[in-house]
Amino acid sequence: MLKKIFILFLLAALALQSNSQTANKRLVDEVNPFIDTHKSRWFFFSSACRPFGMVSLSPDTWALGSWNSGYLYDSSYIRCFSHVHCWEISGIPVMATTGAMKGQLGFEAVKSKFTHDKEIAKPGYHKVVLDDYGITAELTSTCRTGFHRYTFPASDTANILLDIGATLGQGRMDSAFIQVENGSQLSGYSVMAPTSRRKKTATVYFVAQFNQPFSKFGGWKKTGTAVTRTLLENVQAVSGKEAGGYVTFYQPSGPVLLKVGISFTSIEQARLNLQSELPHWNFDQVVNESYSEWDTMLGKIKVEGGTEKQRIKFYTDLWHSLLGRHIYSDVNGQYADNTGPATVIRHIPTDQEGKPLFNVHNSDGFWGSEWNLNILWSIAYPKVMSDMISTLVEYYKNAGLIARGPSGGNYTFVMSGDQAIPMIAAAYNKGIRSFDVEAAYKGSIKNASPGGIRDHVGYELPAHPYMQHYISSGYVPEGIDGKQMHREGCALTLYFAYQDWCMAQFAKGKGMMHDYQYYLQRSFSYRNVFDSSAGWMRPRELDGSWMKDFTPVSQGFNARGFIESNAAIYTYYVPHNIPDLIQLLGGNEKFAAKLQQQFEKAAPYKFVVPHGHHAEGWLDYENQPSLHMAHLFNYCKKPWLTQYWVRRIKEECYGDTTPYGGYNGDEDQGQVGALGVLMATGLFDVEGGASVNPHYEITSPIFDKVTIQLDQRYYPGKTFVITTINNKPGNNYIQSARLNGKPLTDFRFPHSTLIKGGTLQITLGATPNEKWGIGK
Amino acid sequence: MLKKIFILFLLAALALQSNSQTANKRLVDEVNPFIDTHKSRWFFFSSACRPFGMVSLSPDTWALGSWNSGYLYDSSYIRCFSHVHCWEISGIPVMATTGAMKGQLGFEAVKSKFTHDKEIAKPGYHKVVLDDYGITAELTSTCRTGFHRYTFPASDTANILLDIGATLGQGRMDSAFIQVENGSQLSGYSVMAPTSRRKKTATVYFVAQFNQPFSKFGGWKKTGTAVTRTLLENVQAVSGKEAGGYVTFYQPSGPVLLKVGISFTSIEQARLNLQSELPHWNFDQVVNESYSEWDTMLGKIKVEGGTEKQRIKFYTDLWHSLLGRHIYSDVNGQYADNTGPATVIRHIPTDQEGKPLFNVHNSDGFWGSEWNLNILWSIAYPKVMSDMISTLVEYYKNAGLIARGPSGGNYTFVMSGDQAIPMIAAAYNKGIRSFDVEAAYKGSIKNASPGGIRDHVGYELPAHPYMQHYISSGYVPEGIDGKQMHREGCALTLYFAYQDWCMAQFAKGKGMMHDYQYYLQRSFSYRNVFDSSAGWMRPRELDGSWMKDFTPVSQGFNARGFIESNAAIYTYYVPHNIPDLIQLLGGNEKFAAKLQQQFEKAAPYKFVVPHGHHAEGWLDYENQPSLHMAHLFNYCKKPWLTQYWVRRIKEECYGDTTPYGGYNGDEDQGQVGALGVLMATGLFDVEGGASVNPHYEITSPIFDKVTIQLDQRYYPGKTFVITTINNKPGNNYIQSARLNGKPLTDFRFPHSTLIKGGTLQITLGATPNEKWGIGK
Repeated sequence: MLKKIFILFLLAALALQSNSQTANKRLVDEVNPFIDTHKSRWFFFSSACRPFGMVSLSPDTWALGSWNSGYLYDSSYIRCFSHVHCWEISGIPVMATTGAMKGQLGFEAVKSKFTHDKEIAKPGYHKVVLDDYGITAELTSTCRTGFHRYTFPASDTANILLDIGATLGQGRMDSAFIQVENGSQLSGYSVMAPTSRRKKTATVYFVAQFNQPFSKFGGWKKTGTAVTRTLLENVQAVSGKEAGGYVTFYQPSGPVLLKVGISFTSIEQARLNLQSELPHWNFDQVVNESYSEWDTMLGKIKVEGGTEKQRIKFYTDLWHSLLGRHIYSDVNGQYADNTGPATVIRHIPTDQEGKPLFNVHNSDGFWGSEWNLNILWSIAYPKVMSDMISTLVEYYKNAGLIARGPSGGNYTFVMSGDQAIPMIAAAYNKGIRSFDVEAAYKGSIKNASPGGIRDHVGYELPAHPYMQHYISSGYVPEGIDGKQMHREGCALTLYFAYQDWCMAQFAKGKGMMHDYQYYLQRSFSYRNVFDSSAGWMRPRELDGSWMKDFTPVSQGFNARGFIESNAAIYTYYVPHNIPDLIQLLGGNEKFAAKLQQQFEKAAPYKFVVPHGHHAEGWLDYENQPSLHMAHLFNYCKKPWLTQYWVRRIKEECYGDTTPYGGYNGDEDQGQVGALGVLMATGLFDVEGGASVNPHYEITSPIFDKVTIQLDQRYYPGKTFVITTINNKPGNNYIQSARLNGKPLTDFRFPHSTLIKGGTLQITLGATPNEKWGIGK
Repeated sequence: MLKKIFILFLLAALALQSNSQTANKRLVDEVNPFIDTHKSRWFFFSSACRPFGMVSLSPDTWALGSWNSGYLYDSSYIRCFSHVHCWEISGIPVMATTGAMKGQLGFEAVKSKFTHDKEIAKPGYHKVVLDDYGITAELTSTCRTGFHRYTFPASDTANILLDIGATLGQGRMDSAFIQVENGSQLSGYSVMAPTSRRKKTATVYFVAQFNQPFSKFGGWKKTGTAVTRTLLENVQAVSGKEAGGYVTFYQPSGPVLLKVGISFTSIEQARLNLQSELPHWNFDQVVNESYSEWDTMLGKIKVEGGTEKQRIKFYTDLWHSLLGRHIYSDVNGQYADNTGPATVIRHIPTDQEGKPLFNVHNSDGFWGSEWNLNILWSIAYPKVMSDMISTLVEYYKNAGLIARGPSGGNYTFVMSGDQAIPMIAAAYNKGIRSFDVEAAYKGSIKNASPGGIRDHVGYELPAHPYMQHYISSGYVPEGIDGKQMHREGCALTLYFAYQDWCMAQFAKGKGMMHDYQYYLQRSFSYRNVFDSSAGWMRPRELDGSWMKDFTPVSQGFNARGFIESNAAIYTYYVPHNIPDLIQLLGGNEKFAAKLQQQFEKAAPYKFVVPHGHHAEGWLDYENQPSLHMAHLFNYCKKPWLTQYWVRRIKEECYGDTTPYGGYNGDEDQGQVGALGVLMATGLFDVEGGASVNPHYEITSPIFDKVTIQLDQRYYPGKTFVITTINNKPGNNYIQSARLNGKPLTDFRFPHSTLIKGGTLQITLGATPNEKWGIGK
């Protein structure tokens, strides 16, 4: 009887808890970090991580390689919990084991099985059971400190391993060092070897504090020409090739807690980061603070209505857009500048209270971010956008060029063209000016000149004379240098033309009308690679002739002349002058028919081609060059086709919320996530927001209500609210719209209206209103 | 008491069984299919498969993609059991489930968890438990028929699914068809869509027989523009996009057995294959016959001594070399020729009993096989070598060029140059002539001429004028056409020069002395890309000038001018005239020092660079261009250095027998396996055996005794036995050698000696005998 009562009580308690959870559902509960983790780039999955956190602590099921590494959903084993999942940067793997020490044998000897049924992953928290050892591992973090809680089985020896010299993520460590500071504290560093993209070493430093004294310290390293590593006992420090260390607790008193502060400047700075951000041992408090910080960030856009699945995808998309480009500078604004012959410690300028004015970030390139992050951040996260620009401009101040894909304090020339200027022009012209505008302007001019960033293409260090050719002949021919990858002339011409227009808009915004005229004129260079007889953008040879054997789609990684794509897609790369492109292609009807045909060809394949086969698609919504194509129907007086295709792409290509889909390719540090957010809310801008009169193009939102909280440090309004009427499945088409109560008949409205706050009301229907959106 | 007795009896029985297993240990028990399966190409893993079997039936833990697909060791789920794991070819996935039908929802809806502790995989047999359903699945096969045994839980509905229209391996199916033939039999086909490498559709047909009538048949397909597939009931056939079918057994009587005969020509031929090879239902008999067939094949080389780990790696290597290039022709010699505008059914010539004289195979390219398969097959499997040549020559007869990487009855121009001629010349000059020698000769001359196979480079269909440039100027300059991948001029020049020498040796063997002189002269073309001032092979531009900004190592996939590699490695690509290369590089001492330095630079990285970074290595034992480099010390009077580095590479790069190593990259359909076999037995030939006087170079074998059974259809001798004296760890160096009892002082001995049968006795020691191997 007593037993029965107890069970009833338990059920009641569970019901209560479940109710209260529903009532107070946090936005972090809408994020599903497992989406599309069946494959992964090293930097894709992060659980114990704050927004853009320097620490991104999570289980690595496979620890080697830049692709198909990190956390892979279908894997059976956890190899380690490592702290840094950046573009070309990794570090400080931790593992917990029981019994005899096998750390010297590497990840394969110490890995453990795990299952998803005993696993929780949320923004800011990860819990998983290491089945081979019976250890419950929990992870959380502050911005720069990883926080671990390991609950060991009572009966066994408890070990914590730091295999800091092991190959991890993008590659090898040159060497590593670990030392005992006192009976419960270690410190050290790992020197990452250069990669083909990050040309110099970069060092990650750490201080590791345990909540109780360890019984023993030891380590391992590789000596001489030995293949295997030697286990070292009775040492206080280990250093060298593949060095690592461990501590053992014979009788741990309760769970073993571990705080790991990291820094890219020094051990002392790692200690400062740890002490500033995490002076206590209250694990659960840090988990809750992580949830709160994420809730605040995610809450800048609140959505209502739609399906549960759509909301989960929305907040997972939004989470990705605020995650992957991790902070590189310390809590006091120090960071390591590795652009010169030796490392220089730089200091970010501070406010009156001594706090750094911004953070410097590591980041993959901003290739194509004009159609995702630049738009999203400028609407809801202007400070983020400003910090990213400040990061890139710091490189100009330190080393003469505004950066493209900064990593480990140095340039990586990832991808092509000047990827900063679309973001800088958009920020400036939208009123986000909390970066060094004058330095940004000077740097952008330099970036756009011969010898600037545009002459560095495709990971290579030396500059090539792309800009000289572009300026003298109006285009970049093929074959200026014969090396492959990301240096194809036709695509470069198109990028340079758009970037020239962005530069022109920045100049116009600043009142520099002479510069404006100059860059505006150059921005028409796309016409020089348009072959009117073929009806496509077409590569030109060194002698000016059109490339022979030309086809709009091709084979393999990229068609000749194009970057990870082909003529069928790059022909539409004129973001700044679609009306002119429409004329070149024969007017509205011909343009629409051509584009429509490409969509129909691509639809059976969910609008994507597999990574590595980019040359083969008529459309490719898994890669940057075609992310705006559905929105082009707006410009040829067929907004209803934009509405139709955007909805289908959102559903078929980006709709999955399982570990086996959702991005259908390379999510690329928030870019595809941000595009999903824009498609869901019904906002976009083909021009990327860089115009002196920036605006937003409307499609049909998938939610009943979207409330955007405006950042009052930048914008006068409080909220901009988008509501839909008759929002139900199948109602893909905009029937009418009202902006602040007044009828809106154009497919776009100004940024200047949005930032004042207000309402956009959109009425949806099952059949197109072909008259809406084409003006009066 | 009874219980105790029973347990004792059980233990005794187990002990007995274990003893008898040890006593009768089969070679199949030495094969570990799991080695290096943590990553996988689609064609890498095969369990239920005969030697080169048309059917390669095995569990797919991930079913999509050509890389990182098929069976991945760390995966938690099985998606299906599919029958075809070829280069660019896949087909007929089967899955077993219980309960409600979810087949229309695809692999993700029907997958099941599994664990390795309930799994057995051997050559010819795979057993695994589908934990989500409680189904024990067992697989075996004949050459052209997959044989499944599913033991379902007694209480539930049993389903067998054939999702034959699903995307699988390399890509999509254009359409599929499945029909009920009678109450226990289905048939149908899948039409594979073209890929960027296989340019036309290819069809795989099947007949599926169950051992008992099914209770129900149904299926699914995609209709109209629907995203999801529709479940179809009360049908007798399903066809169309993403079509598939299933059968349900409400009360299966014992295990459900399923035989699936396949063919690439027709349903009737699939039926013939099934009936000819598997007329009965005795599953265990087929498992045992598989083991026997493999034991016979593997037993052509018997090894004794060495460690258990070394023997397991040896037979796993050997197994891979006899596995991946699967049979394409039917049991009666029919095959589908897809080289022309429409499919033509061809018939392989037959012997007096009506049996086909050879089998036609699918195959990835033979790029670099001169240093592995060509040597191994010519020693122990001459009929295999002959069949592969017959396959390639069939394409000449059908469509005018000897093939390179035949797939689905059509050319795929995978990789570069004429990869057949090194194999053809080696076969002919070693006395293997059971192919159409005259056609092979004519075809090889054509292949070596303008418009021949060498002008097709890097997957592209159209011919390019590489040979015209090569013949007129003595080299292929860079930039004849600007497309990327596998068409780099300096590497092509080096390949063409070696292939010219092979052609010359073929001509000389046949007594065609005019041809011999012509091709011999062309074979010196490597000198035209050797830059004596740089000391490296160096790319030349269209105007004949040396490439500027040249460096021996570079970045990324390949350095300009080289194919998946760089100058540091391709400089040594003169297999046919190493003495001349040594002179070009300054003589024996300078050559040895240069090469030694490269080995020392590569040693810390296990002698490999990661796939995709081939340009960055000083050496790269995971990819074809450098597989002979350790053997070059033999040619500069330092055989002891060859012995030293071969042993280290064998141990450090190829020694692992876990799922996480063993090949350290792309095993490439038996090529790296065959190299491992050669390194273990101490045989090699830098010239690839194509000389009119072919020979074998000796290194220190890792075993006490190696017995090679000679094929008496080709060779007069019965066995060639290699024994070692003082073989123990650390004894890497040859002290002396005796061939058939007489001292052998050269580092090589003739093929003509080997094929007479005999003995090679090698005495090993811990320090080099620097005088051995450099002649008298």
